[in-house]
Amino acid sequence: MKIHKLWNDYPDLSKDLTATLVLMEKNINLSNKDVEKAILTMIHSGGKLLRPAYLLLFSQFGKDYDKDKAIALAAAMETLHTATLIHDDIVDEADIRRNLPTVQSQFGKDVAVYAGDYLFVSCFKLLADYASSLKSIQLNAKSMEKILSGELGQMDNRYDTSMTIDRYLANISGKTAELFALSCFIGAYESGCSDIFANKAKQIGSSIGITFQIIDDILDYSQTATSIGKPVLEDVKQGVYSLPLLYALKNNSQALLPYLEKREQMTDQDAEKVFQLVQENGGIEAAQALAETHTNKALKEISKLSTTTQTVKDTLYALTKQLLTRIQ
Amino acid sequence: MKIHKLWNDYPDLSKDLTATLVLMEKNINLSNKDVEKAILTMIHSGGKLLRPAYLLLFSQFGKDYDKDKAIALAAAMETLHTATLIHDDIVDEADIRRNLPTVQSQFGKDVAVYAGDYLFVSCFKLLADYASSLKSIQLNAKSMEKILSGELGQMDNRYDTSMTIDRYLANISGKTAELFALSCFIGAYESGCSDIFANKAKQIGSSIGITFQIIDDILDYSQTATSIGKPVLEDVKQGVYSLPLLYALKNNSQALLPYLEKREQMTDQDAEKVFQLVQENGGIEAAQALAETHTNKALKEISKLSTTTQTVKDTLYALTKQLLTRIQ
Repeated sequence: MKIHKLWNDYPDLSKDLTATLVLMEKNINLSNKDVEKAILTMIHSGGKLLRPAYLLLFSQFGKDYDKDKAIALAAAMETLHTATLIHDDIVDEADIRRNLPTVQSQFGKDVAVYAGDYLFVSCFKLLADYASSLKSIQLNAKSMEKILSGELGQMDNRYDTSMTIDRYLANISGKTAELFALSCFIGAYESGCSDIFANKAKQIGSSIGITFQIIDDILDYSQTATSIGKPVLEDVKQGVYSLPLLYALKNNSQALLPYLEKREQMTDQDAEKVFQLVQENGGIEAAQALAETHTNKALKEISKLSTTTQTVKDTLYALTKQLLTRIQ
Repeated sequence: MKIHKLWNDYPDLSKDLTATLVLMEKNINLSNKDVEKAILTMIHSGGKLLRPAYLLLFSQFGKDYDKDKAIALAAAMETLHTATLIHDDIVDEADIRRNLPTVQSQFGKDVAVYAGDYLFVSCFKLLADYASSLKSIQLNAKSMEKILSGELGQMDNRYDTSMTIDRYLANISGKTAELFALSCFIGAYESGCSDIFANKAKQIGSSIGITFQIIDDILDYSQTATSIGKPVLEDVKQGVYSLPLLYALKNNSQALLPYLEKREQMTDQDAEKVFQLVQENGGIEAAQALAETHTNKALKEISKLSTTTQTVKDTLYALTKQLLTRIQ
């Protein structure tokens, strides 16, 4: 089982994350081989495993830390994440994810619907079997609701050229940050940390998730024109406007609006022009500045954590810094 | 709020089922109005509300019977049922359900994916908020897994002309009976019935569910040729072979095989011919005989229930008899 090279520098986490993937895989038992294959392909497509990693880290702050339990809960989080990706790709009609064909493009929408559903169920099975209390299940359900609201918010704001930065932040708070927040909370809470500590963990997770998504959106736009990733152009054509585009639009709406107002009629050439205009009109720099503010906030929150478990805190800090300064 | 006329004869249940629908509706809070409307349309499309009705009935056998809790758990079951219907209609590309346009045909596949997901979440939220123990959540997750396996089994057996009656029964055990079984179990278990009683309730629910599905499948084929419902012809064209067809195929494969072997190439006329051959070759009578056996089994199990709550038991018996002798 090979995991993302990011973890080479974190040998302990690397071992536990491998065990997480093994458990996720073990939980997939289906007589329908198409759906099973679709799910396993997705599990092994090289995701970064950030949500389970943060759950594993925060669980080590607790007095009741139990590695097997932490790994099971980490598997539940990554399973949920995988489910949402598969269903998102149906909605977006995306062909490519992590440089591989998506489940919907490879196996069809019907398989993708059931594959996602199966993973939602698998997540709840893991949680119900390993969580100590109904509280984690309740929070998981609430988080799933927020994640869906974020996805739907993004859908609602399609082609909305007057979309605000706050609206963007609200959408990514649900779509991305919520599952980071939940993972950090459950890790801490289920290993016996105090409610206060667990809520701090949640807040840190949320900051990390928001920042991570902003950076992801910046990276989409900071490639050279020749290596433009297909996904970002598809997003623009589908009316999904992320932070760099929103800033560029604020800076020079005159240049961008004529392209954006074409909506569904936008051509590939138009999308490439938009991409270029975002680069030329300070979209990336402004987004980077906001990312930096959020990165500093997240790191400050971590450094303020009061704990006797200094080694774990150091790892948490180092990992977060590494992730959130990918582009600075 | 209007509910199915079936409940006119059961005024107490009718009141509680109306409250169930009101609660289901109250739990739908979405800023995306398309998805919200899609969900509400589906909730008000006149489903029979059988799963919540059985949950409400079985909850009245318990010493800790709490009407509000029972209604919440009943809402969770119907919410889960609604979620599976919406996703099934995506997979089947169905245009009509309960004589109304399906969510996928009316609002598109993307809305239908998220609408179903939202209802899965809504179900878990209700359960996590109202169930007394993790056991109900665990069982719910396991049941959802079986429901999906039943759906997938049906998908796997498409166009399988050598499919056995046992295979059919296994698929409907998952696809339909499991949620009846879970509803009966949770009703009994969460209101303080003994484990033995709750497991009997589960078994009764399973018998009722299997019989109910067989009868539904018979009704599909027992209309006059002029009023053939579109859904059954669509099923046949999509390779979903239900009990009457399987029996007719056993009785006269020579007549039916040439049509079935056309698979995706089957025309509307071919499907109507298949429909007619099922009627002419004893498919309906054989299926009715099996339905009768299962009906008697379910009614016998109910009459054997040892309880002091005779009125509820009488209602349970009367309702089940009414439902399962619709065609006899």
